[in-house]
Amino acid sequence: MILKELKNLIKNRHLALIKAKLLEIQEPDIAELLDELDVKPALLVFRLLPKELAADVFVHLDGDRQAEFSTLISDTELAEIIDELYFDDMIDFIEEVPANVVKRILINTTVTERKLINQFLNYPDDSAGSLMTIEFVDLKKEVTVAASMKRIKRIGLNKETIYTCYVISKKRKLEGIVSLKDLVLSDSGRLISDIMETEFISVHTNDDQEYIADVFKKYDLLSLPVVDNENRLVGIITIDDIVDVIEVETTEDFQRMAAIDPTEEEYLNINTFNLAKRRITWLIILMFSAVLTEFVTTSNMHLIQTFGILSAITPMLMSTGGNTGAQSATLVIRGLTLGNIKFKDLFKVIWKEIRVGVLLGVMLGMLNFTRIIITYKEVRLATVVGLTLICTTTFAALMGGLLPIIAKKLKLDPAIMASPMITTIVDATTLLIFFYITSLILF
Amino acid sequence: MILKELKNLIKNRHLALIKAKLLEIQEPDIAELLDELDVKPALLVFRLLPKELAADVFVHLDGDRQAEFSTLISDTELAEIIDELYFDDMIDFIEEVPANVVKRILINTTVTERKLINQFLNYPDDSAGSLMTIEFVDLKKEVTVAASMKRIKRIGLNKETIYTCYVISKKRKLEGIVSLKDLVLSDSGRLISDIMETEFISVHTNDDQEYIADVFKKYDLLSLPVVDNENRLVGIITIDDIVDVIEVETTEDFQRMAAIDPTEEEYLNINTFNLAKRRITWLIILMFSAVLTEFVTTSNMHLIQTFGILSAITPMLMSTGGNTGAQSATLVIRGLTLGNIKFKDLFKVIWKEIRVGVLLGVMLGMLNFTRIIITYKEVRLATVVGLTLICTTTFAALMGGLLPIIAKKLKLDPAIMASPMITTIVDATTLLIFFYITSLILF
Repeated sequence: MILKELKNLIKNRHLALIKAKLLEIQEPDIAELLDELDVKPALLVFRLLPKELAADVFVHLDGDRQAEFSTLISDTELAEIIDELYFDDMIDFIEEVPANVVKRILINTTVTERKLINQFLNYPDDSAGSLMTIEFVDLKKEVTVAASMKRIKRIGLNKETIYTCYVISKKRKLEGIVSLKDLVLSDSGRLISDIMETEFISVHTNDDQEYIADVFKKYDLLSLPVVDNENRLVGIITIDDIVDVIEVETTEDFQRMAAIDPTEEEYLNINTFNLAKRRITWLIILMFSAVLTEFVTTSNMHLIQTFGILSAITPMLMSTGGNTGAQSATLVIRGLTLGNIKFKDLFKVIWKEIRVGVLLGVMLGMLNFTRIIITYKEVRLATVVGLTLICTTTFAALMGGLLPIIAKKLKLDPAIMASPMITTIVDATTLLIFFYITSLILF
Repeated sequence: MILKELKNLIKNRHLALIKAKLLEIQEPDIAELLDELDVKPALLVFRLLPKELAADVFVHLDGDRQAEFSTLISDTELAEIIDELYFDDMIDFIEEVPANVVKRILINTTVTERKLINQFLNYPDDSAGSLMTIEFVDLKKEVTVAASMKRIKRIGLNKETIYTCYVISKKRKLEGIVSLKDLVLSDSGRLISDIMETEFISVHTNDDQEYIADVFKKYDLLSLPVVDNENRLVGIITIDDIVDVIEVETTEDFQRMAAIDPTEEEYLNINTFNLAKRRITWLIILMFSAVLTEFVTTSNMHLIQTFGILSAITPMLMSTGGNTGAQSATLVIRGLTLGNIKFKDLFKVIWKEIRVGVLLGVMLGMLNFTRIIITYKEVRLATVVGLTLICTTTFAALMGGLLPIIAKKLKLDPAIMASPMITTIVDATTLLIFFYITSLILF
């Protein structure tokens, strides 16, 4: 169903038909339609959905739309939705809605639940604790496969996953992991202790989400247990949340590499002032660093006054150097992020970038040499520009390859050595090289 | 176990101890150790592993190490490994190894297998066909849950996943999907046709991997069926491969945005000449575009000759404008990639960027106004620089926001409107604005 069709059906009040058509499509698609409608018709349509489906659709709505709905619906409706949500989705929801809605949610919870909610709200953002959910299947190791399958049948419906089950001791310590695949494929009389995997990976509530995403990627996991300081199992993280984490972390990398203070908020939802705030700091730092180019030029003013054309050529030289350096920096930063480049590869990177830089410089230099001879018919000027390009491109490639690795070694984020910073460094150096070669050849 | 410990154990030939220690760690960790060793000791250690584990470790080895091993091991060993591999991993492997190894692999396959391998090798790179595997569980709709569970028990061991099962007709048309969760939680007497999901998502063998990754993200899937032109089920794609796809696609985005012709190869594995080739095209295009700045400067040469200081200040102005534009472009390109920004948001983006640009420009302009008064004690020059920064920053933000959206509308990759291109456009415009304001105020 497309938005236009839905709007028409709403206008003509074909509610039964709307319901029938919505039941044919997937929850994320229904949520997308509801996000696009005005809030009142959206709520009208939302209320047509069967209870369980409504909760599933609710999870996929925009944060703003969730907040709007939650202030408009009755306490009973709100309680019904909350009841259907997985614990991690509920926590995400509570973090988004206005305080009065939070109050209405908490009124309907028991003391134990409220304690748990509070505990989860206190886990640091971006930590395992803030990603995990508590709806997992726990088993005992002294029980048979058949009895465990019965238990899964009994409690499985409301668990986020039943495909990995967790074997815990009486004190809730995590002792092993058993997949539903192994349970299904094993003889029903065997004990869990015989088939459970005891060499398993687990993470701690405070572990960072970027690290957790790496663990998922490395070991091809579908879910991962989270333990507390006493090694007690407190929750699990599932792969669907990790896909979101990878996306958020990548977005932050893009932002850092463009000299923006990173934010998880979507572009269209950030207000102008906040957006400017996230961009101004680095712009100021880079602007004042660029003053270096001013010093270089003023101290070589006699060259420019003799050969006015020099000042016309510098922007092209600086921009070509900057682009080359940015290419190298991007390749190396991404390699560091993915773990393909390590500190021990420093000299390999340096050697590779020097050779690539020279190769690029020679090609670009020759092209410009020819162009300048054609345009200005000045062999000496063409030589200066060609030589400068070779030197500046090589220097830029070297810096772009080197500085991110050094930054990482110094426990800084390599992303600060991306295009903006490299360009600023390369700009001043390009000018220095250019004026030096000019004074050698043209004077 | 760490590398140093392993090397020591190898030197002292403590083979039994090595084996025991390796059995305690995960396959990807064993593979990492084997990647780091020289090829001979690595093969020695690899041969200690039990057959099934060896195949699992083999999948996680570097492509180079896989190729080395495959030329050194016997036909029997090679056949054993191939036998344990899932079909998609085998195809990936065949694509990597030298031709003589491919020949040795194909000798041990039946005619039917060889036909299937050929078919898979022919799917375009980056298509659903090249990602899918054929080890899935197929069920019939007229069968009971109990009978289906028996079938899964019988055939499940060598399937890449048993958590989603596929219901197909006699002609292998895909009719429905049933999760193992539903099978486990349903009464054993029910028919598959009663519990299967008939509103399911599927993709076509030729669909692009970026689209497939989006489908996985949107619908939180663990696996996805792939059908051919006649809607027959030919394979499935699992989430673990999608995580890799997301990573590869992101890397390509980073490369495109840095004006590099994208490659899936790891940085350290690309040879110098190939790397230079992937970087030179855009560098040449951008270098010749930058010649525009040369025209702008030469046609305003009289201003520079009167006020030499102008040529010293221009790099800082251009770099600040470029940085601002690059920030906007990065935010908008990423928003377009994630689907948060659409063409209909064009005016929202323009309006936001204009306001942010003005705000940033005023702040940066005032800072520089003050700095120039302090440094040069020239109010009129300070005014020119301040005003230029306001105009150039606003223009840069606008272009950075606008051009990626326009590019996407024109079916171009928005990534070409990233930092390098925006910077080049902004450079020339900055000079134009600067010289224009200079001629208004200083003359």
